[in-house]
Amino acid sequence: MQPSIAVADDLATQYLLRIGDTALILAQRLGEWTGHAPVLEEDIALANMALDLVGQARAVLSHAGAIEGAGHDEDQLAFLREERDYRNATLVELPNGDGRPGDFAFTVLRNAMAATFFRLLWTRLQASSDAELAAIAAKAVKEARYHQEHSADWVVRLGDGTAESRRRMLAALDTAWPYAAELFADDAVDEAAAASGLGPRWGELRADWESQMAEVLAEADLPAPAASRFLSTGKRGVHSEHMGYILAEMQHLQRAYPGGVW
Amino acid sequence: MQPSIAVADDLATQYLLRIGDTALILAQRLGEWTGHAPVLEEDIALANMALDLVGQARAVLSHAGAIEGAGHDEDQLAFLREERDYRNATLVELPNGDGRPGDFAFTVLRNAMAATFFRLLWTRLQASSDAELAAIAAKAVKEARYHQEHSADWVVRLGDGTAESRRRMLAALDTAWPYAAELFADDAVDEAAAASGLGPRWGELRADWESQMAEVLAEADLPAPAASRFLSTGKRGVHSEHMGYILAEMQHLQRAYPGGVW
Repeated sequence: MQPSIAVADDLATQYLLRIGDTALILAQRLGEWTGHAPVLEEDIALANMALDLVGQARAVLSHAGAIEGAGHDEDQLAFLREERDYRNATLVELPNGDGRPGDFAFTVLRNAMAATFFRLLWTRLQASSDAELAAIAAKAVKEARYHQEHSADWVVRLGDGTAESRRRMLAALDTAWPYAAELFADDAVDEAAAASGLGPRWGELRADWESQMAEVLAEADLPAPAASRFLSTGKRGVHSEHMGYILAEMQHLQRAYPGGVW
Repeated sequence: MQPSIAVADDLATQYLLRIGDTALILAQRLGEWTGHAPVLEEDIALANMALDLVGQARAVLSHAGAIEGAGHDEDQLAFLREERDYRNATLVELPNGDGRPGDFAFTVLRNAMAATFFRLLWTRLQASSDAELAAIAAKAVKEARYHQEHSADWVVRLGDGTAESRRRMLAALDTAWPYAAELFADDAVDEAAAASGLGPRWGELRADWESQMAEVLAEADLPAPAASRFLSTGKRGVHSEHMGYILAEMQHLQRAYPGGVW
């Protein structure tokens, strides 16, 4: 059994892990839909988004390993950390909703929230002082634009659809929306990234994110949820009860057979 | 709950269902690896192959629905048939191997067997008298070529790798190989396709398939398995005990929410 790796806690590494892990864990959740989407076309779309996100995670984690300087590659970072060393926002670790593989309304709403965030983030990261990160962002921003448009279309279709689809979308909003606040709660990691030019404070993206989401919700005839005081803490390594299950699924093969070679 | 659809049993429809279903069910099995492959790069490769296969299945089933003439679309064909109306070769419905999500050696060996077959089939189908099928084949043959090369590389790497990887590959050969015979067992469906120019008798592909597989096994330093008298029957709708579980997974959402709209 492969032991866990310890990860450097410098602020630049943490900033990159927050990006890479948020993409990685959302990809896991989307991957659960493979073979289960309501129509084949959507099965393909969700799997494509999962693939894009794994690709982004792989690029960012590989770069994080390089700047961390401890010789960890992207697979060690993806598969061999302890739960508290994963720095994804809690939003993406929430289950897809009730049932297996989950609730489609929740899935597309969360995708819209995450993709809107990622598109804004990648747009800014194209100007990163870190040339490698800027290059990753230039590719990823195109993918995020598609993810945002595709998922926003579904939010509108379901929100403004049947009574049942609307009921599900309202329930999804109740569940997912409170987890948005964490994305924009700045701390020392954001301050350091802003100071070095590595990337923006995520809080700087809040106004644009809210206005773009408000536009989608208006078109879907869905009420904008009220703000709450709840603040999730995945970016600091303190995760929901769902995270352990995701990691158990993700890690068992890599831990049993490190490097994929028996 | 959405009821099952009945599918026309004309020979041309059956020929197309055998192709589309074999791609569809293999895609389901590959999709089970999403998030679980030994390294991120391979996770992406398996998911890409699953996507290609779903795309091929969607195109072929859509076309089968059109020529069947009962107004069934590809989603109804993919999700609303009874088990006996699925016409995939049994090989692709076998589980990925012991454990979850399965055994990587079995997975890559089956992929090599299936992709070698599909590449030969798509190559021939480019000359189909059915222009739509020929167009599908022209795109699919490029995808199958990549699948074949990628999976053959893994067969060699594992067969000629460590003692443990070789042991697993030998076990995978014992399990998977006897299911190849079904691919090449011609019947009235093949005769009709050959007569109309729709496509080749699958048995015509056998010699090339055996020689290409023999080459890979030789490079992997693996013994070519002996022929057996076992003949599986999935192409005729008589499936292994594993098929019901796959369909339960695939169908529950579509049956509960037909058309993906609540």
